[in-house]
Order: sequence, then C-alpha cells, then structure tokens
Amino acid sequence: MLLPLKGITVLEFSQYLAGPYAGLRLADLGARVIKIERPGSGDACRKLTTKDLTVDGDSLLFHTINRNKESFCANLKDSEDLATVRKLIQKADVLTHNFRPGVMEKIGLDYQGVQSINPRIIYGEVSGYGDKGPWAHKPGQDLLAQAVSGIGWLSGNKNQDPVPLGLAIADMLCGTHLAQGILSALIRRKKKNIGAKVQVSLLESMIDLQFEGLTTYLNNGRQIPSRSEIANAHALLGAPYGIYQTRDHWIAISMGEPGQLSEALALPELNVSISEAFVKRDQIKKKLAEHLKTNTTAHWLERMNSHHLWASEVLNYDQLLQHPAFKALSIPLTVSRESNNGTGSPVNVTTTRCPIRINGRTLSSPRAAPTLGADTASILEELQ
Amino acid sequence: MLLPLKGITVLEFSQYLAGPYAGLRLADLGARVIKIERPGSGDACRKLTTKDLTVDGDSLLFHTINRNKESFCANLKDSEDLATVRKLIQKADVLTHNFRPGVMEKIGLDYQGVQSINPRIIYGEVSGYGDKGPWAHKPGQDLLAQAVSGIGWLSGNKNQDPVPLGLAIADMLCGTHLAQGILSALIRRKKKNIGAKVQVSLLESMIDLQFEGLTTYLNNGRQIPSRSEIANAHALLGAPYGIYQTRDHWIAISMGEPGQLSEALALPELNVSISEAFVKRDQIKKKLAEHLKTNTTAHWLERMNSHHLWASEVLNYDQLLQHPAFKALSIPLTVSRESNNGTGSPVNVTTTRCPIRINGRTLSSPRAAPTLGADTASILEELQ
Repeated sequence: MLLPLKGITVLEFSQYLAGPYAGLRLADLGARVIKIERPGSGDACRKLTTKDLTVDGDSLLFHTINRNKESFCANLKDSEDLATVRKLIQKADVLTHNFRPGVMEKIGLDYQGVQSINPRIIYGEVSGYGDKGPWAHKPGQDLLAQAVSGIGWLSGNKNQDPVPLGLAIADMLCGTHLAQGILSALIRRKKKNIGAKVQVSLLESMIDLQFEGLTTYLNNGRQIPSRSEIANAHALLGAPYGIYQTRDHWIAISMGEPGQLSEALALPELNVSISEAFVKRDQIKKKLAEHLKTNTTAHWLERMNSHHLWASEVLNYDQLLQHPAFKALSIPLTVSRESNNGTGSPVNVTTTRCPIRINGRTLSSPRAAPTLGADTASILEELQ
Repeated sequence: MLLPLKGITVLEFSQYLAGPYAGLRLADLGARVIKIERPGSGDACRKLTTKDLTVDGDSLLFHTINRNKESFCANLKDSEDLATVRKLIQKADVLTHNFRPGVMEKIGLDYQGVQSINPRIIYGEVSGYGDKGPWAHKPGQDLLAQAVSGIGWLSGNKNQDPVPLGLAIADMLCGTHLAQGILSALIRRKKKNIGAKVQVSLLESMIDLQFEGLTTYLNNGRQIPSRSEIANAHALLGAPYGIYQTRDHWIAISMGEPGQLSEALALPELNVSISEAFVKRDQIKKKLAEHLKTNTTAHWLERMNSHHLWASEVLNYDQLLQHPAFKALSIPLTVSRESNNGTGSPVNVTTTRCPIRINGRTLSSPRAAPTLGADTASILEELQ
C-alpha cells in the first residue's frame, strides 16, 4: 500500500514527547522523519527513563516515541553544522521544534528565518503555554500543564485531592493537535503553494480536552464541576455512570433508560429523571455500590446485556492482552535496530502500532528508534 | 487568512462525540462540514444532556461539539432522500460515520458502495473496538472502552478501585486520530487522485494513549503498572512526581535533579538515584507529603523556582479563567445562531476555541451549532 505521506520529509528538532509524538504519527503515515539531534547526548528523552528502563543505551520511553525515524547529529551552535541544517531545511516539507522562546531566533531558525530558506515549509512550534502572557517562559511539562488546567478536579472522587490523569495526556493531545495543524497546512500548500506556521501548546490542548466541562462552566453560572462522592467517572454525568466493585471484581456502567436500568439491576432507586439522577447521584450511587457487591460481575453483565444496556467488565493489562478481542486487532509491533554496542547485533523492542487503519491495513514499520546520529553520514551524502 | 481546509466538504453521518469531534476540528481548519441527520430527532447527541443543560432545544453538549457545522435532514431509509444523499456524496471530499457494522452496507453506503458513487472520497469509519473479533458488535461507549483498556489502573492511588479519566478521553483521542487519518488521505489524494478508507476505534485509541505503559509492560516481564500509594500522577515515575497538599493549597511537583530537589525542598530523603526514587517512591512521597503541609504553596514554589526546578500551583476553573496567562490566550469563543423558536432571535453559546494557531492567528468562527435541518433547503438548491 502507498502510505499517505510518502514523499513528505519532516525535520524534528522537537524533544521529549509532544513534538516527537506528532512525528511518530507522521512517520506511521509514511513521512520520512529525521530527528535533528545534539551530538553526544541527542534528544534529552534518550536519557529520560521510566522505571529506570533502557534498551541498548536509550530509554525505553525514547524507543517507544521515536521508532521509525532517522537521526542526524548537528550542533546548532556550530556555523558549519548550521549551514548543513539550512541545506536540509531547503529540501524539507515540515519542521517541528519545542525550544523555549528565543532559542530558534538566536540561530536564525525562527519561522521568518526558515521561510527565507524555504518559503513553502510548514513550521510546527510546540510550547507549554503559548507565546503570549506571563507563562510564555514557564517550563512546559505535562503534570504542570495538567495542574493549572483545572483537570485535577474531574477524575477521582469528590473529597480527594486533585487527581491528575496518570499519563502524559497534555503532551500526547498536544502532539495530535500539532499533527492535525501540520497536515491541514500541507493540504493548503498543495493548492496554494504557501507554507505556514502552526502553533500548539500543552495548555491550549488541555483546555480543548476539557471543552465539555469548560463550556458547561461558561454557560451555567460559572459553577466548578463537582466530582461525585463515589464511583466518579464524569463530573457532569449523573448516576449510575461509573465503575463499581462487585462480589468478585468490578463493573463499568454507562448510561441507559432509567426504568430499564432499575429493572436490570433490580434497584428501584435508579428509576429517576435525568436531572434527579444527577442531583441525587451520590446517594443513588452509594445504594448501587452496596447492591452490586451482592453478586458477581458476570451476573450483573448478563442482566444488563439482556436489557441491551451498556456495561462492561474492567480489565487490567494481563486480561486485556489475553483477550481474543485484543488479539484480533494485531496491536503489538516488534521493531528492530542494529545495536549501538559496535557488534551490530539486532535489538528488538515490542510496542504498540499506529491506531489508524488505511484501506483495512494496519501501518506497522519494523524500524526501531535510531541510534544517535545513525543516519548522519547517509544524509550528508544525499546533500552532495 | 485563507483557512487550510477551505474548499473541502465533509459529510458527517457520525453522531455523539468521536466522529463529530473530528468534524469540529476539520470545520475549525476551514472545511465545510454538513451533518446528515435523521428528520425529527437528528444526531442523538442533541438530546444527550450533561447536568440536564439544554440551549434552544439542543443539549449544551451538542452545541459544544457541533458549532460551525451545517445540518441536512435525510431519512436514509427513504429512497428519495437516499438518492439526494448520493448526490451529496458525489460532490463531497470526506464522509464520516460511526454506525454499527452492517448499517451502511444495508443502504449501500459502505465504502464499496460510496466508492462507486465517488471513487476519490475519503471514507472515515469510527467503531468501538475495530471491525474484527468478539467485540466488533459491542457498543462503543467511552467509559466502557476505558474500562477494558486497562487505563483504570493508571490514575488515582494504589489501593483505590480502578479510576477512569473523568472525561470522554476515548471519544476525543479517537476523533483526533480520525482527523489525522483523513487529512493524510487527502494529501495522498491530491498527489495520486485516489480515495481511502480510514478506520479508527475507541479501543485502539485508548491503547495508543497508553503506549508508554503498554510498551513498558511488553518489555519488562509483563508487570502491570502499579500506582503509587500516595500522590500518584504516573504509574511509571518515581518520587516526587505528583500533586501534594501544602499548608494553604496544593502544589504539583515534576521531576528534577535529586540533589537539587532535596535542597530546594529541604528534604534529604529526595536525594536518591532515579531507581531508588522509583522503588522507594511510596515512603519518600509520604515523607514529602507530611513535609509540604508545613508551609504554603507560595513558599515551596519560590524555593523550587529559585533552584530552576519544575513545580506549579494547582488551579480550578475559577482561578484559571481569572489568570492573566489564560486571558492572554483569548480562549473563550462566543458562537451564535438564530433560535429554533420561530422568532429567529439570536441564541449565544460561549465555548472554547480551536487549540491550533495558524500564522499566529486563532481560528474562531462565530457560527453556532445548526438547528436540525437548518441548511436542508439551501443545500437542495445547490443540487439543482
């Protein structure tokens, strides 16, 4: 299959997660993504470990985010290297970076400078909090962006401290927005032959993620969404929406017609109007929680399913990966590279594939994340 | 400014959130998005209320997701309406739907059928769990997709029940992936003049969201990530990463050089190796939690900032929206439509704008979500 972005070249000056997550998706979709990395250390993510895990000298995290990319080493403070990078920019379609304000200006690679080299380029810029206002220079980091965004008050239960989402959601959503902006600008370029500057930030992405909650806040007397006291799963939804313990495990219960819900779960308290289900959700959910403990997940699921109501078991990674429904999706993807250690022996990492399928096909390149500078020589040759 | 997707027409058969969230972003970026809606009721989301809130007869939720779109009424079971829809498909660039398997086949609007009308169309399909395997017919709903994805074990603290993310994350991330696939297929179409079928699902998007955790699981002896007992913010990161109570409020603390951290926070226990900071995170975090309660957020922030370490206050919606940093971003967007009530009086909704900026400009159309069938007549005229 001809990958959709075949022929598109992306220069990735971005480090860590947000920008490189956009680069990963563009690579999945067929773009050639070249990481421009500092000699010696490279993308700082190479050393950013989770659980202290590294593979072949790079953090497993770096491997996860940067598979299927190339690596070109350049010291942006060295005039000769900079001249080479300018040649790469001449031939590139897209550039992304997440440097602090001023860094790219200093070396003449801000949008204006890059336009003078390549007016058709799509210039993607990731920041923490936008380029205006008192936070323009505040370090952009996922947990801090979550903390100021108000999202701490949406997950977990009412009387708990603010509960952040337990993964790098600001980085990832911001990366998807960056990819969307870049792709739409590439479409305009095909038609109008003009480049574009695309800007995203962790905070603006966190705000977009909360557009339901914020729009409710803005149109409903500025009431801060309040988590339910028990089994909270969405601050704006009433009972029974949530995850509950059963006698043997857990069950997730979504929405449904109140009469049917109360019949399926044999709990009259569920037979209320939507507004009551919201206003009285804490007391209803507490009754439901007690009630569900009296029987097994299978029992309740069977009753819910027989009423065509929405409920589900709650799985962990062991249970999910063993499940035929997961196996049917061919998610795991093993990627490989020649080791850094000089022997050139193969190093494998198993990760998850791109979530997008094109014409029924999954997109799954076998190429692992590059060793630092792995492609410097061959790319220099191309420039000859 | 010429919006990037000017000239692109999207037919949105999708209902609820995932598909329409993709449509919202395409509309923000300049596409003409026409909702194809059932006469009488339309997109079921029009009646899906959060907190029982409606504006001008449609749920506030519907307004939030569907601003800047048009509405065309068609009964897909009526042969005359279907013939009209086929004419629209002839002229469209993109189609999206999230019907259960078999529905589009039955009316001849599956990808094959649509290709025979318009071979160049990009056909976007949203499902809950993909089109293969035992869950292919399971209802695709956000909380249920979260429940089976294993994400319940990433947020909240170790001894809590599974904690879902308190918003429709599966829908939203799936919508961003759909938009990415559609945009990349439009780029290929410009070059090769071929259409594409783009498929995404809630589950595959939830798996992609957890690519860090799942890759760690797959390469680290299949250990299920374990949340820390206190101040958990990322199951794979060690102390002090998390949100803590102070004497007067809360503080979010990210990563940093251990020596500096322990000095800034005056807590020797923080001066440990990265692997110790992970292995001993519970005891270290408990000590830190006690310690941080002894002084104010401002005090600790000042100490962290003076050491150039990453920390932040924790805001709620009131505090965020009052903050100069938020105001500098011009996030709120007021959209307007003529009322449904026959008087044609204007109805306003204030929501949040697109998170993507192009050439320094925000994208902010003033057009609210359409009343059901608002554009049926004018679109029929166009077809004459």
